[in-house]
Amino acid sequence: MYDIGRNKRAEKAFGLDDVAIVPTRRSRDIDDVDLTWRIDAVSLDFPLIAAPMDSVMSPETVIEVGQLGGLGVLNLEGLWTRYENPMPVFDELAQLRDPLSAIRRMQQVYSAPIKPELIDARLAQIREAGVPFAGSLSPARVRDHADRVVKAGVDFLVIRGTTVSAQHVSTTSNALDLKEFIHTLDVPVIVGGCANYNTALHLMRAGAAGILVGFGGGARRATRNVLGIEVPMATAISDAAAARGDYLDESGGRYVAVIADGSIARSGDIAKSLACGADAAMVGVPFARATEAPGQGYHWGPEAWHPTLSRGLRDHFDTIATLEEILIGPSSSADGSMNLVGALRRTLASVGYTDVKSFQKAELILV
Amino acid sequence: MYDIGRNKRAEKAFGLDDVAIVPTRRSRDIDDVDLTWRIDAVSLDFPLIAAPMDSVMSPETVIEVGQLGGLGVLNLEGLWTRYENPMPVFDELAQLRDPLSAIRRMQQVYSAPIKPELIDARLAQIREAGVPFAGSLSPARVRDHADRVVKAGVDFLVIRGTTVSAQHVSTTSNALDLKEFIHTLDVPVIVGGCANYNTALHLMRAGAAGILVGFGGGARRATRNVLGIEVPMATAISDAAAARGDYLDESGGRYVAVIADGSIARSGDIAKSLACGADAAMVGVPFARATEAPGQGYHWGPEAWHPTLSRGLRDHFDTIATLEEILIGPSSSADGSMNLVGALRRTLASVGYTDVKSFQKAELILV
Amino acid sequence: MYDIGRNKRAEKAFGLDDVAIVPTRRSRDIDDVDLTWRIDAVSLDFPLIAAPMDSVMSPETVIEVGQLGGLGVLNLEGLWTRYENPMPVFDELAQLRDPLSAIRRMQQVYSAPIKPELIDARLAQIREAGVPFAGSLSPARVRDHADRVVKAGVDFLVIRGTTVSAQHVSTTSNALDLKEFIHTLDVPVIVGGCANYNTALHLMRAGAAGILVGFGGGARRATRNVLGIEVPMATAISDAAAARGDYLDESGGRYVAVIADGSIARSGDIAKSLACGADAAMVGVPFARATEAPGQGYHWGPEAWHPTLSRGLRDHFDTIATLEEILIGPSSSADGSMNLVGALRRTLASVGYTDVKSFQKAELILV
Amino acid sequence: MYDIGRNKRAEKAFGLDDVAIVPTRRSRDIDDVDLTWRIDAVSLDFPLIAAPMDSVMSPETVIEVGQLGGLGVLNLEGLWTRYENPMPVFDELAQLRDPLSAIRRMQQVYSAPIKPELIDARLAQIREAGVPFAGSLSPARVRDHADRVVKAGVDFLVIRGTTVSAQHVSTTSNALDLKEFIHTLDVPVIVGGCANYNTALHLMRAGAAGILVGFGGGARRATRNVLGIEVPMATAISDAAAARGDYLDESGGRYVAVIADGSIARSGDIAKSLACGADAAMVGVPFARATEAPGQGYHWGPEAWHPTLSRGLRDHFDTIATLEEILIGPSSSADGSMNLVGALRRTLASVGYTDVKSFQKAELILV
Repeated sequence: MYDIGRNKRAEKAFGLDDVAIVPTRRSRDIDDVDLTWRIDAVSLDFPLIAAPMDSVMSPETVIEVGQLGGLGVLNLEGLWTRYENPMPVFDELAQLRDPLSAIRRMQQVYSAPIKPELIDARLAQIREAGVPFAGSLSPARVRDHADRVVKAGVDFLVIRGTTVSAQHVSTTSNALDLKEFIHTLDVPVIVGGCANYNTALHLMRAGAAGILVGFGGGARRATRNVLGIEVPMATAISDAAAARGDYLDESGGRYVAVIADGSIARSGDIAKSLACGADAAMVGVPFARATEAPGQGYHWGPEAWHPTLSRGLRDHFDTIATLEEILIGPSSSADGSMNLVGALRRTLASVGYTDVKSFQKAELILV
Repeated sequence: MYDIGRNKRAEKAFGLDDVAIVPTRRSRDIDDVDLTWRIDAVSLDFPLIAAPMDSVMSPETVIEVGQLGGLGVLNLEGLWTRYENPMPVFDELAQLRDPLSAIRRMQQVYSAPIKPELIDARLAQIREAGVPFAGSLSPARVRDHADRVVKAGVDFLVIRGTTVSAQHVSTTSNALDLKEFIHTLDVPVIVGGCANYNTALHLMRAGAAGILVGFGGGARRATRNVLGIEVPMATAISDAAAARGDYLDESGGRYVAVIADGSIARSGDIAKSLACGADAAMVGVPFARATEAPGQGYHWGPEAWHPTLSRGLRDHFDTIATLEEILIGPSSSADGSMNLVGALRRTLASVGYTDVKSFQKAELILV
Repeated sequence: MYDIGRNKRAEKAFGLDDVAIVPTRRSRDIDDVDLTWRIDAVSLDFPLIAAPMDSVMSPETVIEVGQLGGLGVLNLEGLWTRYENPMPVFDELAQLRDPLSAIRRMQQVYSAPIKPELIDARLAQIREAGVPFAGSLSPARVRDHADRVVKAGVDFLVIRGTTVSAQHVSTTSNALDLKEFIHTLDVPVIVGGCANYNTALHLMRAGAAGILVGFGGGARRATRNVLGIEVPMATAISDAAAARGDYLDESGGRYVAVIADGSIARSGDIAKSLACGADAAMVGVPFARATEAPGQGYHWGPEAWHPTLSRGLRDHFDTIATLEEILIGPSSSADGSMNLVGALRRTLASVGYTDVKSFQKAELILV
Repeated sequence: MYDIGRNKRAEKAFGLDDVAIVPTRRSRDIDDVDLTWRIDAVSLDFPLIAAPMDSVMSPETVIEVGQLGGLGVLNLEGLWTRYENPMPVFDELAQLRDPLSAIRRMQQVYSAPIKPELIDARLAQIREAGVPFAGSLSPARVRDHADRVVKAGVDFLVIRGTTVSAQHVSTTSNALDLKEFIHTLDVPVIVGGCANYNTALHLMRAGAAGILVGFGGGARRATRNVLGIEVPMATAISDAAAARGDYLDESGGRYVAVIADGSIARSGDIAKSLACGADAAMVGVPFARATEAPGQGYHWGPEAWHPTLSRGLRDHFDTIATLEEILIGPSSSADGSMNLVGALRRTLASVGYTDVKSFQKAELILV
């Protein structure tokens, strides 16, 4: 604890950039590394989830991520469920270079209503491909569409908001009782973002199969500027991992996945988030560089087009490779933007681990 | 305390950029957040005061801020009280792009004498609009014009200098006895800037209704370069808030408003300053981006045109939106420059508070 | 130790940029400084080894470094042993300005097989010049070619990988038993990179004449981005120097050279690495600026052209001077890129030391 | 003390950028501030010494600084004593924009021999103006020319090297015995740079009237890159000020001036250096911006043209004002480059001091 002044104290919190993994005395063969990740009944080849952001996840890319061995999530409140054919909208947005104009136009196009039948159609299209997949809804709307999503056969329902607290107090609306809601659902739920030990524990007690750790998704910088709120990820993940352990104990063995969600732009960030205690990472930025990305080089989350308070940037990235190259290589770029899975495998081997669970104990330093 | 060397020790002080607000276990409905702020007899819709800087506050914009629910302050030693029609001066300054030439010209145009009758006229114009308003004078000149200002019906007299100390010692001039002076006035006084606990306490004891915390207004960077003086705001606000508590106790219940004044450029900074303990924030930069700003994209305070020692920059900003959009939205920009009030409301809701007074207890971290 | 979160603690580690050498009460004549360095049977005029990177070390530049009094090392798995005449390959690569295209082409040209007879030819060419020299192989391939290298009459065999651990565990391959391997060889071995006390001690116990300290060679930044692994050099060198002392004691007097390898771009970095406890430094970047450098201004290590996971940048530097000027001056550039030896001599004199061994005790500060 | 690694510990040292002056409870009238500074028999209007660097100090500018109330020092080993008419050399250097070419040409033009009769002529020219003045020689050459300099009637002999240690050990040359040398001289001596308590104390015991604190003059950044040596100024000044106090005690009342020399580019740095304990500051950069500066916008010290190891940059600055405006104002630039004296006066007044001696006790914070 540090004294900010005579009236206020604060703890130091750490981001992923503040920490690094260090080699220790042992290394392993890269071929001995097993990244397989199991959450609820689903087994995936590696612990990566593609973030439900319109700029990266279309029904096609959700399928492709699944075919490559990961888990894709479609945003069910985005352009794909508001427009029969959203491609002209994507094309138009890609033409708008001025950030202010682009956000204003996005606020308009996202004001089109969600068409429930499009939720059905998009999920059906993915389901036909026979890969694991998920759909995401916001806490505010999840009750409206959850049944429909479950019926569509998703493997997971993702409830993803900027922040989900342990206790939401409202005098006017009927707040979501998460525990009761999850209990009534027929699919496992992944829910977040949460940013501290207490909320993580609460979400686990509510019955989540996995929790998203982070605040503001990829919009960390904007969130800090607009709201003054910031959740350094290394600290948040470590706190959530502590909650996972305590809940495992109190529940007599229920293991809830901790999924890092936010500030994860490079393969090295994925490794760091796992070494901080995460079981998996939800990533968006790397996929925005794929030739298949609907955003065509632009990348944004739902924070960007909030109707009255935009608090997410629309970033621009160069398109560098296919989704496959980005996910499983080969990589020709030394900035951590390609071969995310190969890089993670290499990190584990270099510091002497063969699976993610034991790698969570890897030694970190402050840099 | 750190050892600088064998001869000197220093404490670590923190700026608003060093801290961040963290979500805790509770969140609230945004509609349950009440930002109403009461200072002396005046009630405002939100705790924001527009800084008395010529580049942002004209009689018209003071009125507009008041109509939108805030408090505008007119600088009574600026162009509006030196020139019958200052618009050509603003136009000329907006043409000067070279900083050195611009400051030199400002030193000339600000050497025109203050016309007391213009003080009357400007304040009368605002008063007619029927909104709360204030006028500001410097410590050096406040005695010359205070009666006139009070007579004009302002809600507050703002005495604003680069710094106001608890004790000003002079061998040649007759220093202002603040306590005696405030006692004789018929309007509540807001006075500053102050930068430490002792001075804050002194200003409260002198009878101020509110104190401005900060040094150099928005000219922090320049002040550091020119004078070597710097007052990191998070620490200064926290210290002043401690003084407020102690004075509340010693005075048997007089609550003096702590108003953060300086380094507040983005909506997130406003939230942080309140979380450090401020009751309200005085802001200039955000309004410099308004289409109505007299500065036409340029922004400066009185430090800039000091006749012999310029120590404030003339900054340039893009004009992005109307004063209304900047103050109460909607916002299409994720950099904290628009919808200041909506952003503050959102921050409180996100971390579980419904009013500013309780939000002052929000948890901070060092980032 | 700092708390990252409830689940994880970390120590603070320091890079060379975090530390600086401070003058103390004594200074020495620059002519009294003796930089002579002895490792095994070889005596060198100064403690600098040119890194086995294709962009800087050709047979010709290995010879030139040797003639100037240092030690050059040829990469025996690079272009010189894959191509009879590699110059057209260097020329082609120098034409490719786009980083992605350059790395892709490098992945292709480095996929050509190593021709054992070229190992013989290149080393024979250097040996004729009669200067001390070394050849480097990777841990994976050292068994395939070591005999050939020893027979060629090198002074040292360098085994250089991104990381060499104290214990490599493999279920599929037959891991190298370093101790046994070194024991069978007829030349002294320099091996690394290692990044911590335990591994340094293990490599010393395995019989190394010198150990390379660092991770990722010059590819530190890329390694952090791609793998999340980072080894701040000041800490790594100090830990290895502690291992050297402990091993000296346990072995009854065997002194193993600690050679800093990585992040050493300027002459000041060389001085700092020695002051942290290194006996010598392996450097690449400075030589990339030489008119004789095969890379023609571009600089890369083997991490760059890894076939599936590039994790080293191809940097670009201006060609500024001859190899001789860069190594022993005179220098006309105040950025630490020229007269590396003269600068080191000057540093020792300025802070009062006449030889490297005593300079290892120089006082450091954190800056 | 921090652990760098298992083998090395280091203290944290602070530069002027790490500290700031904070207002306390008192302020003073600016007209009550008295900056008069007395060193030995000379009284100056303010505690500023112009650095003996060719780019800023010509005989004419030394005179001008003296007439404005400060102390100018002519470098007696620079162009003014090597060339009858150095102006064409300055003109030629001002035409060379490429840094490498410029340094190479400087190494040539500074290889011209020093003409002792020019030392006489330059000093005589200044003396005629009747202002306080000084000439500087390097430790290596001070014995060759000191008599001549004393005879010319300087107020001070400045012996200025990159570093002067408490004890210089040489096996080949006859090192300068500073104490004996100063004892034989008929003028007070200012000597440095020194960088720690012990050396400061030694120089005081040797009989110096003033000591220069710093290493590498203005060439701090280059010195760090080239030599790895760095002396953060806040710590160095504080340590020297502690030595001043201890020496005052042990000598029974001899007060030796501590003069900050290095890293002082803005008026705020001057204030900070005094608040750290200095009695005066030697500055170069601000004068490089004067219309009268011989360097014509370029600025360099003797480190730049070292014949074999350049370790000082040739910086470029815009010419912004006359020497008078830079020194005593008025200032139209808020970056600390003009009205150095007025800014210092303002700082003292703002934080409640009326003279430099008491201002040395001003409160600092770490920022």
